[in-house]
Formats: sequence, structure tokens, C-alpha cells
Amino acid sequence: MEPAIKYHLIKTEKHTGARLGEIETPHGTFPTPIFMPVGTQATVKAMSPEELEDIGADIILSNTYHLWVRPGEDIVKEAGGLHKFMNWKRGILTDSGGFQVFSLAKLRDISEEGVHFRNEISGAKMFLSPEKAIQIENDLGPDIMMSFDECPPFFESYEYVKNSVERTSRWAERGLKAHQNPDWQALFGIVQGAGFKALREQSAKDLVSLDFPGYSIGGLSVGESKDEMNRVLEFTTPLLPENKPRYLMGVGSPDSLIDGVIRGVDMFDCVLPTRIARNGTCMTSHGRLVVKNAKYARDFTPIDDNCHCYTCRNFTRAYVRHLMKTDETFGLRLTSIHNTYFLVHLMKQVRQAIKDDNLLEFREAFFEEYGYNQAHPKNF
Amino acid sequence: MEPAIKYHLIKTEKHTGARLGEIETPHGTFPTPIFMPVGTQATVKAMSPEELEDIGADIILSNTYHLWVRPGEDIVKEAGGLHKFMNWKRGILTDSGGFQVFSLAKLRDISEEGVHFRNEISGAKMFLSPEKAIQIENDLGPDIMMSFDECPPFFESYEYVKNSVERTSRWAERGLKAHQNPDWQALFGIVQGAGFKALREQSAKDLVSLDFPGYSIGGLSVGESKDEMNRVLEFTTPLLPENKPRYLMGVGSPDSLIDGVIRGVDMFDCVLPTRIARNGTCMTSHGRLVVKNAKYARDFTPIDDNCHCYTCRNFTRAYVRHLMKTDETFGLRLTSIHNTYFLVHLMKQVRQAIKDDNLLEFREAFFEEYGYNQAHPKNF
Ligand SMILES: [Zn+2]
Ligand SMILES: [Zn+2]
Repeated sequence: MEPAIKYHLIKTEKHTGARLGEIETPHGTFPTPIFMPVGTQATVKAMSPEELEDIGADIILSNTYHLWVRPGEDIVKEAGGLHKFMNWKRGILTDSGGFQVFSLAKLRDISEEGVHFRNEISGAKMFLSPEKAIQIENDLGPDIMMSFDECPPFFESYEYVKNSVERTSRWAERGLKAHQNPDWQALFGIVQGAGFKALREQSAKDLVSLDFPGYSIGGLSVGESKDEMNRVLEFTTPLLPENKPRYLMGVGSPDSLIDGVIRGVDMFDCVLPTRIARNGTCMTSHGRLVVKNAKYARDFTPIDDNCHCYTCRNFTRAYVRHLMKTDETFGLRLTSIHNTYFLVHLMKQVRQAIKDDNLLEFREAFFEEYGYNQAHPKNF
Repeated sequence: MEPAIKYHLIKTEKHTGARLGEIETPHGTFPTPIFMPVGTQATVKAMSPEELEDIGADIILSNTYHLWVRPGEDIVKEAGGLHKFMNWKRGILTDSGGFQVFSLAKLRDISEEGVHFRNEISGAKMFLSPEKAIQIENDLGPDIMMSFDECPPFFESYEYVKNSVERTSRWAERGLKAHQNPDWQALFGIVQGAGFKALREQSAKDLVSLDFPGYSIGGLSVGESKDEMNRVLEFTTPLLPENKPRYLMGVGSPDSLIDGVIRGVDMFDCVLPTRIARNGTCMTSHGRLVVKNAKYARDFTPIDDNCHCYTCRNFTRAYVRHLMKTDETFGLRLTSIHNTYFLVHLMKQVRQAIKDDNLLEFREAFFEEYGYNQAHPKNF
């Protein structure tokens, strides 16, 4: 059987080992490293499928937990799958729901079998297990799906994390067995282990022995420092096979994207660009810009003079500010398009820097201009 | 001096006298009768300029009062006018702010000079007069602007309305004198007079003697019945010159559009399509459809099987329902696009019916299919 996706390593950057590659999926081939915008509820907030294509997004992420709750995976399946339901023709990756169950849901009861909890909206009793997560993802029909994992807090004890890692490996194996569509949906294993090198090694070894078509790195960007995250990545990515893609879950600030690529990561996702867009914060080549600020009331220049997105080609800071101040949804759309374009475009520049073997120079220039080299830089 | 706009009467429908025409403006020529979507805050809610063009909107309305308050007409002027500010290349019409001052603002003090009131958001003292309204509209720079008028309640006494009509005529004359850009902005006079034929006659006579490039019919759709509105239109439009456009303000339900055209109206505007879109109510060729209803959860057909809008070409009732239920702004966009397309397309059909001299047959078939002929039809 042909695998659902194929990863091709094209080259590694001379000084860092950063990987340039491409992934073939049933919905198109895309270059890596790549940033995936998040469409939690089968829509990337405020944007149409055509706008996402225009931005250059090749694959988006959608959330299994949210779609299970509303509208229900049965309805998405009846619609012909998530691609048809939301009219998105390129790649889709879904998470397993595990992160939401462990972070959002109340009254959790975790056992070997799975997790009992209550839906935070309806209060209804729900149960998620490796098999149930896979069934939902099979019904949703994304190109890439995630194993059901336990995501422990970063600063738990070694013993706690060890138990969690071992359960995650057993759950990964159960998920692999339950998976119905390996020929057109690629299931990734998720490496856990918090900040413990020995546990990341154990987790990676367990999962690699199961021969997943790709590997995710979970349990990062959950409150630990950037240095801590980079330290973990440095000893984790070498544990993963060179011929499979590596996906760092939930990470999307510009500095972390670049630093992740330098440490061998191929795929990223984050709600950051659309979340900060909703209060009018924009990422620009010169750093963050809060377009609602009074100083932009008469500023008739684009949000970012170096940006070629739809927003910057057609509208001014003064206009976007006016829309945000008057709570017009078109304002959210314009800031969301700009921010998403910014990260998608950043990854394009990063790929070019890998080709040109000057990724560290690119990093230094970007960090300087964005403001990361200043004292007390903000997190985005 | 060439007038800012020119109206050409192309033909009148054989059985009703309904007018087919076109209006030349500095931002393009459009056919009449026409429906104008409302972009209160320099944005038609949830839609981009490109989407409005794609829908077929040739002219939109924006609200002087709202833009005066936020961002301020000085900022719009500095941006190069409303067309540039919002990146809309086709026609724009602004009202005078009178309707908002008389309906929204608190603590009004009406005198011959103008109206003192407090801004309902900031509490700030404000003053609007015929001269001030024209100055704001000159700064905003629309193709068509409205005189500052008093819009009396429909069921006020004859004496009250007579005083109001006479003041509106004096205000219209003051506005005409204050108008700085008659060569590229067409100022319309507004015929008032509530339900009194003699007062409508007096108002029309006063205004026609001032030779405005177009005439609005105000003070309708403010709580009176549809029959009442049609009765007033029947005796009002014949008072207006054949070679000038006639604009019925604030009217946009499908039945009223058709019945207004039959009585000689050329232009309409209404917030109805975007307002009802926000709670998921759609206008369809088979009548109203509340897409949030549970019965559409597994309905994978378009909102309207006869509609060729972006929404109906690409998405299903089930998906739009899911977006509305999860409060996703893309849902508002999809219902707003559909409803606006519906009315713009309805006017296209109405123009064809005028060409074919079968407007009454078209009305009968449309009313039957939409449900207006049922007992207790709803207002939209
Ligand atoms: Zn931009
Ligand atoms: Zn439609």
C-alpha cells in the first residue's frame, strides 16, 4: 500500500541543518517548512477559502474536538468530508482532540481506556479514547490526522510525565490499529516527554518503532520559556527519522517559527495571527503594530509597507483603525488576512534562506527589525 | 455647468408606467430601477468592495451622521474622500444625517437654524444644520448627497407636518446655497409631507422650483402600512419631473421594491438584507429561510436553488447553519452576500420585466412564490 502522504527532503541548510522539503498529500503537494493557519470550526476565522488560497496557505488545521461537538462528525461525513463541507480544496490536518480535553474540559476522569469529561457548553457527558478520536478523524476526512495523546503540564514530575508518555505510546498503537483509511489519511504519532530528555527519547523510540508516516512534537509552547522550548527541540528532532515530516504543534510566533526550523522542524500551526488580529494587533516587518492606536487615525499608509497582502495593497491604517473602532467585521477580516499572510510569507522567506544557506543571517536581520533583540521583547 | 449626474429615461412599462432608465455619475453609469446596499460606517457590513462588485452593486449608501461621529469627515477628506477611504470605485450616495438626528439622538432642540443634540455614544453636544450637513457631505465626497430635512412621524397632525415641510423646504434652499461642488456631487431635495396629499404637493412644488438634479421621497417606511406607503407614492411620484431620478429612502423589502417601481420610483436603499442576515434569515425565491433552524443541519443544498451568488455556488445550508451556530463571522458574510445579491438580482429581473412590459405578471408570480399572497405574510 502506498502511504497517504510522502515527504521528500530536498536539502538541508549548510550551517544549521534546517530542512527544505515537500509533502505530497491527496490534496496537493506543498513545500516545507510551512505554517498552517488554524480553522477551528471548519473556517479560518474571518477568511474565505479563496482568501486563504490567495494568501498562499497550502494546508490548514482544524480541531477534532470542536467539530465533534458542533456540527458533529457524522454531519461532516455526510457532507462528503471536511474539504467538501467547508469548500477547501488544499490540505487539511486535524488534531486528535486530546489537547482540548486536557485543557478545556471540566471534570476529567482519565483512565487507561480514555477520558471521561463534561462538554463545557452543554454540560453533556462525553468520552474520548484513542479509538474514538480516530473514528472522528476518519469521518472528518483530513489528509493528516493526529494520534490521541495525553499532553502533560511542562513542569510536572519525572514520574508523572513518564507514566503519561508510556500511556501516550500505548494509545498511539491503539489508534494505529483503529485507523480505517491509511491509504488516504496519514496518521502522525505525537512525541511527548515535557522537558526530560530521557522521556522524549523513550517516547520517540516507541513511536518510531510503530512507523508512523509523520511525527508531531507535543507538549511545547504550554508556558515554558523560549529557551526551554529550543533546548527540547534540539534533542528531540534528531530522534526522528529523516524521511518523515516533523510537526511542532501549536507554535506560531515569528521567532519560534524561525528557531524551530533551525532545529529541524517542518510544520507549524498556531491561532496567533487570527487571535491577535481580533484586537487589532498586526505583525509587520518592523514589529508589532496595534492599528487601533490613536496615532494611526490619519495614517494613510498600509499596515506594512513591505507587505503585498490584500489588506496592504488596498487599505490604509486609518481605514483599518476606523473599522476596528466601529466593530465592523470587515476590520477583523483585513487584520486576519494581513497577519496570516505575514506568517505564510515569513515561511517562504525562510525556505529561500535555506536554499541560499543564509538562515542564521536571515534570523539575525529579522530579529533585529522585528524588535526581538530589544530588552523585554513581547511574545509576538 | 454640466450637472454632476444625468438621468436618462429609456422607457416606461406599458401597463404601469414603471421607469427603465440609467444614471451617469462621476463613478460610472448604472441602470435604474436600482437597489443600493447600505454601508453605514464606510463598509457594507461583512462584505469587501470586490464582493459588492461581484454581486453587481453599482452604487452604495453611506451615512453622514455615523461618519461625522467616527472617524470624522475631516479624516475621510484627508484620505481623498469616501471612495478612496473605503476603496470603492463605483457610486456612493450619502444621506444628510437628518434621519439619525431625529431618530437616534437624545435631547434634541430643533430650531430654524438647525438641531442641537447629544451624541448617543460620547454624550458630546453636537449641532447639525443644513449648512453643516452639506459641508460634511462635501468633505465625504459622494456622487449623490441629500439635503438636510426634518423627517416627521407619519401620524403627526396636519399642522405639525405642514410646519415641518415648510422648514424642510427652507433648509433645502439653504443647503443648495451652501453646496460647494455641484459639478461633481449631485444634491437631491427630499419631499416630505407624511400621508397628506396637499403637503406632499406643497413640498414637491417648493423643491422642484429649486431645480435639484434628483428628488428623494422621505418619511415613508416609518411604521405606516404598506398600503399607506403605496397610496402616498401614487400621488407623490407624479409631482416630480420626468427627467430627474426619484429615490425612495430606506425601503428595501422585496414587495416594496416591486410596488415602488410600479409607482415610478428609480432608487431604493435599505439595511434589511444585511440586518436580517446577521441572525441567519435569508431571502430566497421561495420566501424567507431561517438557516439556523435545526431542520437544515443535514441539508446539503444551497440556500436558494435558483441563486447564483457566491454563497449558493459554493456552500450548503448545513455549512452556513454551522457557521451561524458557532458565531463565526464567515457565516455573516455568506448570508449577507446572499441577501444583498438577492435584492440586486431582483431589481435586474424587475428591469427585464419593464423591458418586456410584463411587470404585473412578474409581481404576481414573485408574490405567490415568496409567500406574500398567504394570510399574515411577514414583512420581509
Ligand atoms: Zn499586509
Ligand atoms: Zn445565494
